[in-house]
Amino acid sequence: MTAQRKPVRPGRRSGDSGTSEAIIDAARGQFAEHGYQGATIRGIAGVAGVDPALVHHFYGTKEELFAAAMRLPVLPSEVIAGVPAEGAGLGERMVRTALTLWESDGVKDTFLGLLRSAMTSDQAALMLREFVADTILGAIVRVAGLDKPGNQAEAEYRASMVATQMIGLAMTRLVLRLPAIAGVTIEELAATAGPVVERYLTGDIALPSAGLFPGTGDT
Amino acid sequence: MTAQRKPVRPGRRSGDSGTSEAIIDAARGQFAEHGYQGATIRGIAGVAGVDPALVHHFYGTKEELFAAAMRLPVLPSEVIAGVPAEGAGLGERMVRTALTLWESDGVKDTFLGLLRSAMTSDQAALMLREFVADTILGAIVRVAGLDKPGNQAEAEYRASMVATQMIGLAMTRLVLRLPAIAGVTIEELAATAGPVVERYLTGDIALPSAGLFPGTGDT
Repeated sequence: MTAQRKPVRPGRRSGDSGTSEAIIDAARGQFAEHGYQGATIRGIAGVAGVDPALVHHFYGTKEELFAAAMRLPVLPSEVIAGVPAEGAGLGERMVRTALTLWESDGVKDTFLGLLRSAMTSDQAALMLREFVADTILGAIVRVAGLDKPGNQAEAEYRASMVATQMIGLAMTRLVLRLPAIAGVTIEELAATAGPVVERYLTGDIALPSAGLFPGTGDT
Repeated sequence: MTAQRKPVRPGRRSGDSGTSEAIIDAARGQFAEHGYQGATIRGIAGVAGVDPALVHHFYGTKEELFAAAMRLPVLPSEVIAGVPAEGAGLGERMVRTALTLWESDGVKDTFLGLLRSAMTSDQAALMLREFVADTILGAIVRVAGLDKPGNQAEAEYRASMVATQMIGLAMTRLVLRLPAIAGVTIEELAATAGPVVERYLTGDIALPSAGLFPGTGDT
């Protein structure tokens, strides 16, 4: 109920639907082939046969283009950025926001479709992994105030642990539909899982030995 | 590394591989059609054209038959029951056991295949949901000592919250392969997520209002 929904740029500003569709088609192909990080606006423009400036004009940033290509009705990073960071209960607000968004029209099927693709194709997994790492984890890090110099590996680990809990809630509630998880309200799940999410973000948790995992948050 | 592996009964004790294969085929069909709870040894025997006693003789319990039909090399409930319950660190031991098992040969592909089926088919989701609810959640409840009279709804909720964290770890480590989760050791993940699992099992968590969700643990 507090999910900050903000529509993705509608594209097709000029009425040239053939061009905008060519861009979207090219974007889907390039994201699938090269992953989220490897795909470039320039490369997508090249495949679509248009100037890169036109891609920006139609679709804005790479994240916005990805959202349009995957038919996401919102920008995940904007939804996360819209979670009020101040005050107690950040974890609860994050769980509430994520579950509310995932269960909303137009999001649930797309979200589950992306997860399903990732389970059947390594390329789709790469694309989703890079998108999550580049946009969603970064947004979580910023909302939690973890974006401090020298803190990148720890911040990425904390945000990734949040992702483990969030994705697990989604899988058990929306896919597996375990009765005790699917049968309670979002508020009740937020009250139970919120403190865990907050602990992962800012609490005293065991962190991996420094240097054991490569940072990807510094792109 | 402390996963207690115990092989599923091998079946085919009599060398009558035609009969045992007919039973397995019948079991796959009946589990898929009626779910884990709805399928019966009697019904499976009927489809296979054998006496129910022969199904028990070849494959043991319903859980063992399910494991054989799904090609699970172990019985999940036995693996969980093998986690030492005494002493501090039960949550850590559970995370370590689950991740070690899921990454072992012959388990990972089957486990991910079951999740993938659940994402593409409501019937497969029903089958997996009932199997988890009937065998895995119950085993978690027993290991954590939550199996007390009058405590069923709370015990089921606590065990299901553990499932959310475990399945989320599996999805992010094995499917999405988020660098910060896939790039650390099982020991490190157990140290971080173990206290959360323990909190869900025995800690002071917010519980849903009584009666809000139907218990399924009392079957």
